[in-house]
Amino acid sequence: MSGYEMGVVHRKVERADPAAVQRLSAFGVATVHEAMGRVGLMKPYMRPIYPGAHLCGTAVTVLLHPGDNWMMHVVAEQLQPGDVVVAAVTADCTDGFFGDLLATSFRARGACGLVIDAGVRDVKDLTAMGFPVFSKTISAKGTVKATLGSVNVPVICAGAIVNPGDVVIADDDGVVVVPAAQAAKAADASAEREANEAEKRARLAAGELGLDMYKMREALAKAGLKYVD
Amino acid sequence: MSGYEMGVVHRKVERADPAAVQRLSAFGVATVHEAMGRVGLMKPYMRPIYPGAHLCGTAVTVLLHPGDNWMMHVVAEQLQPGDVVVAAVTADCTDGFFGDLLATSFRARGACGLVIDAGVRDVKDLTAMGFPVFSKTISAKGTVKATLGSVNVPVICAGAIVNPGDVVIADDDGVVVVPAAQAAKAADASAEREANEAEKRARLAAGELGLDMYKMREALAKAGLKYVD
Amino acid sequence: MSGYEMGVVHRKVERADPAAVQRLSAFGVATVHEAMGRVGLMKPYMRPIYPGAHLCGTAVTVLLHPGDNWMMHVVAEQLQPGDVVVAAVTADCTDGFFGDLLATSFRARGACGLVIDAGVRDVKDLTAMGFPVFSKTISAKGTVKATLGSVNVPVICAGAIVNPGDVVIADDDGVVVVPAAQAAKAADASAEREANEAEKRARLAAGELGLDMYKMREALAKAGLKYVD
Amino acid sequence: MSGYEMGVVHRKVERADPAAVQRLSAFGVATVHEAMGRVGLMKPYMRPIYPGAHLCGTAVTVLLHPGDNWMMHVVAEQLQPGDVVVAAVTADCTDGFFGDLLATSFRARGACGLVIDAGVRDVKDLTAMGFPVFSKTISAKGTVKATLGSVNVPVICAGAIVNPGDVVIADDDGVVVVPAAQAAKAADASAEREANEAEKRARLAAGELGLDMYKMREALAKAGLKYVD
Amino acid sequence: MSGYEMGVVHRKVERADPAAVQRLSAFGVATVHEAMGRVGLMKPYMRPIYPGAHLCGTAVTVLLHPGDNWMMHVVAEQLQPGDVVVAAVTADCTDGFFGDLLATSFRARGACGLVIDAGVRDVKDLTAMGFPVFSKTISAKGTVKATLGSVNVPVICAGAIVNPGDVVIADDDGVVVVPAAQAAKAADASAEREANEAEKRARLAAGELGLDMYKMREALAKAGLKYVD
Amino acid sequence: MSGYEMGVVHRKVERADPAAVQRLSAFGVATVHEAMGRVGLMKPYMRPIYPGAHLCGTAVTVLLHPGDNWMMHVVAEQLQPGDVVVAAVTADCTDGFFGDLLATSFRARGACGLVIDAGVRDVKDLTAMGFPVFSKTISAKGTVKATLGSVNVPVICAGAIVNPGDVVIADDDGVVVVPAAQAAKAADASAEREANEAEKRARLAAGELGLDMYKMREALAKAGLKYVD
Repeated sequence: MSGYEMGVVHRKVERADPAAVQRLSAFGVATVHEAMGRVGLMKPYMRPIYPGAHLCGTAVTVLLHPGDNWMMHVVAEQLQPGDVVVAAVTADCTDGFFGDLLATSFRARGACGLVIDAGVRDVKDLTAMGFPVFSKTISAKGTVKATLGSVNVPVICAGAIVNPGDVVIADDDGVVVVPAAQAAKAADASAEREANEAEKRARLAAGELGLDMYKMREALAKAGLKYVD
Repeated sequence: MSGYEMGVVHRKVERADPAAVQRLSAFGVATVHEAMGRVGLMKPYMRPIYPGAHLCGTAVTVLLHPGDNWMMHVVAEQLQPGDVVVAAVTADCTDGFFGDLLATSFRARGACGLVIDAGVRDVKDLTAMGFPVFSKTISAKGTVKATLGSVNVPVICAGAIVNPGDVVIADDDGVVVVPAAQAAKAADASAEREANEAEKRARLAAGELGLDMYKMREALAKAGLKYVD
Repeated sequence: MSGYEMGVVHRKVERADPAAVQRLSAFGVATVHEAMGRVGLMKPYMRPIYPGAHLCGTAVTVLLHPGDNWMMHVVAEQLQPGDVVVAAVTADCTDGFFGDLLATSFRARGACGLVIDAGVRDVKDLTAMGFPVFSKTISAKGTVKATLGSVNVPVICAGAIVNPGDVVIADDDGVVVVPAAQAAKAADASAEREANEAEKRARLAAGELGLDMYKMREALAKAGLKYVD
Repeated sequence: MSGYEMGVVHRKVERADPAAVQRLSAFGVATVHEAMGRVGLMKPYMRPIYPGAHLCGTAVTVLLHPGDNWMMHVVAEQLQPGDVVVAAVTADCTDGFFGDLLATSFRARGACGLVIDAGVRDVKDLTAMGFPVFSKTISAKGTVKATLGSVNVPVICAGAIVNPGDVVIADDDGVVVVPAAQAAKAADASAEREANEAEKRARLAAGELGLDMYKMREALAKAGLKYVD
Repeated sequence: MSGYEMGVVHRKVERADPAAVQRLSAFGVATVHEAMGRVGLMKPYMRPIYPGAHLCGTAVTVLLHPGDNWMMHVVAEQLQPGDVVVAAVTADCTDGFFGDLLATSFRARGACGLVIDAGVRDVKDLTAMGFPVFSKTISAKGTVKATLGSVNVPVICAGAIVNPGDVVIADDDGVVVVPAAQAAKAADASAEREANEAEKRARLAAGELGLDMYKMREALAKAGLKYVD
Repeated sequence: MSGYEMGVVHRKVERADPAAVQRLSAFGVATVHEAMGRVGLMKPYMRPIYPGAHLCGTAVTVLLHPGDNWMMHVVAEQLQPGDVVVAAVTADCTDGFFGDLLATSFRARGACGLVIDAGVRDVKDLTAMGFPVFSKTISAKGTVKATLGSVNVPVICAGAIVNPGDVVIADDDGVVVVPAAQAAKAADASAEREANEAEKRARLAAGELGLDMYKMREALAKAGLKYVD
């Protein structure tokens, strides 16, 4: 049966090119999302657990069942430096699947953060550690360790497909996923976009209107815009 | 760039085997979902617009932008008898992207229903037509026809991946997606499960307890369950 | 102070022209909303308490406080045959402000329904009475009678401005408000639109594509739409 | 530790007096809730899975974990004719914990319905069976059988405390809980209230205003209500 | 047709008296809202994008369509120093309609902030700029520029009517709108209220009870309050 | 009638042992919740009004009606040093029931914070005062003083039962309630758990896997977990 596999850990992950990941880490989520052609954004309910949290790394995915975080310990073993754990749940759940002990373990294995479509806890400790987490909920409620999910299968997290090895970038604006094979291209496009923006910003700051800078007046008039005094 | 392609219509769709689709149409969503190993279910906010609506067909997908249903007319041309239109939107939107005129057109082209992660309108007419629709919202608000989306690209609809040609089954319990290549296997598994259930139902109706029928007592005792009088 | 006045009952209401209201009652909410230029629609969380409920009448407005339905008795006295009570609350509240006794009273005064941005109860009785109600919530929780609101002031109900005397139309697609002064014009535009739709429906039912009927192909091509085989 | 006990089944339940339950079954939820002094109402997100579903019986409670319905089989054994199963979950979860097989079993044991602060499935079958269920969600997603909850402990279900043996009444207006010891008193108060309402209804139907019937005019004037022509 | 006009830019705005705006800027939202008689408050889902954001200025309104921010460039040209842009959307949408480039342009034109019933992005940059924004959502998802809305028409933003020229005040407690004609009166009432509060605060800080300070004991007793030891 | 009593103030509260409260104040919510066996947690929508807010004290409860904070003044008189006010409302309401004046009064009476299943206002002032508040909403909208609730009755606040005198602990992870009689035991269990965690943290930080530390490998293999290269 295709779709989600249950009870399987894929050890091999084709991670995105480290150089491209490094270059992508310089850009914000909004820039990368635009550069990608507006694809791969998670739903806006995914928020950082502390202001300013940000991360950029390669996805190691984990599929959990509601109320059960057993696989979080399994995924820890599969982590390599620079990885981001992306956790999906088979149904909506607000439990706190993750706290400071798992963060300590993930960090010791080299992980640079967590993106989870569920709840987390120990926010104070995670903040003190500077361990970036993007989640749907914050909840002190713990979970059991009773049923198998999977590790490194494709998952849908907060409305976005994440394949193991994809680049995941998250900041105050949300979370975006760049397919591994597109990482270099996305970095190029982001750099181009940002260069582009610097000049625009200067012109706008000087008082030039977007109407003129983007030459919108004609199109607006053609669309029928009327000015009334 | 991978992910969603914008402005593209794929004319060729590898539809699931019609015989398998026909067999799957005999089963409810809960049965198929269980038979599949609990994969491919859309979020439970997807509801029929009238009680008893149900559908089973092959997915023709359409990716829309918020407030814009232009591609709904494009997708109509790609429909074949037995298809179900699966519509995703690039961001949350409650607009009514679909009403009785489009339903008339879709039906004329052979479509057997619509699954849309957004709003629809003309509910009274659609109900009178017996045209099954599963949606997130009902809204009289119409849309514009200004920006390109795509047709027959993979989409994420209400949390589930839908590839063109997949089987989509929907009833009062929700909406489930069966990958085209797995349709026959899912039909087999569903049939087996249902046969299985008939016997169980009879035993339970006769007063036998699930505790005994499923032989749970030992496992419960081992897990520590205590009875107090 | 402008905005909401508290503790005031306006006895005089300039109701929309009865002939125009009568004509509007023949059209659905989606038709009128389109005919109006897509203005005046309430948020889609407003739903009928029973399938098929519909109403069309002139608004008598009432502004309530959370948990307090005292003014519902005050508004009853201001009702005339053909009126619809439109109830707004000064803050979000799910209480059941209205039940079968008030419905009996409203009906005795000639009212043809209720639109309320809050909760109602006695759904079974209201359904048996055929008294159409569109609400945000259903809740058995009653209210107190302790604080003054107002009657026949402009209110914002579920995101739409309603002035006393406006035409309110509601059906399975939602609730729309037509300013009293525009009632005749809206009826004309609705009739025109509906006539228009009959012909379109026939052509679409015959298998003609919207792409051709609306002559969209050129615009789509110009926007860059690509077909891939 | 008090609060919820885990892994315990209480076999003894002090059920409310059957005669009082019988009498209460004649009243609607809104009436009983008012008669009780407006206590014991569940949150309004609890809805019947089919219009017109209603139930009145004695609570047998079950406490579940997210995604795990093992205890549903345990609770079945504790049911007696006239019981209603009230299911709470230790954290928000939309899974379908209950379907037609469990309904068959519950009914065979004499249960008259289910109230569950989570999801259910097999809505079509449950509707055909006429087995009343009030739930937060409808979802085809099944659950595992891996962790112990409890049976017949006090639970909080949709914001209301339910003790085993309490009377639970549910209809289109929601779900209300009457403590077992208060059942007779609540029935008396409901009867009195309903008698009272019949006369009021007649007077209101005849056109008398609530303003006069409830003698509100003086209090309104004292509160400062002003009429403007 | 009244209601929203589409495709129109009103250049003339009767802005509230600058002196009154200046005086109002000294007060918090809760104070002004109370002073106004509790009118004009937006829904509480409107939140600052960074803690401590606050603004007070005259409204320049813009009406947008879902997923389309074309009019944001049009509104920029209409800004004068001290203005606040108030953006409404014709249907619920979470897209990011606004980011640091538009903020740069708005600020260059003299605007002191934005209130938008939708999403924004570039939160980090906006925070660094100290450009106050109050929004429903944060989302990196951009918008198209394809359809006309309007500028300086009355809009409903998060449940409140905003007319061009009205005073808009926003802080950690939410967003309130003061009609232009009432600005001076609202400032007077706010000042009076605040003076009043200083004395009350001192008395309460000294341990005096509100029960005594507000002389509530008699009214509570009359209402039937009972003390039990 | 049992359940909520209305119009009653219980002056006598059996507060938890001060020494136990003092000891509990050293632990976080997640630790105490685990130590308690995962009981007594409020819903995760309860959030601190400023980051880092935390409190630990004995509950003095107040039951309010929607839109009415009269009883907040009554509860103030019942406060003793070390108390936390826990406020429930008889139906969902977002109004701001509490602001800086009440905070001043509560603090003057010795209260160390507020937990309220509704809205509060004056967030800036409360933050400056360092008065910890955990609420469902922030709203500038004030309330009336017209109807009686109760003080020191058992209440359900955000899904948790709170009895007067219970210990309430709140921090960035949420709000948990410890029954008064269990305070010492919960403090013991929390201390034990925390001691336990220090060692685990060190081992995980050193790179040891939870899989090994918790000896999970055998159970996972037995459950069927497969590794794929």
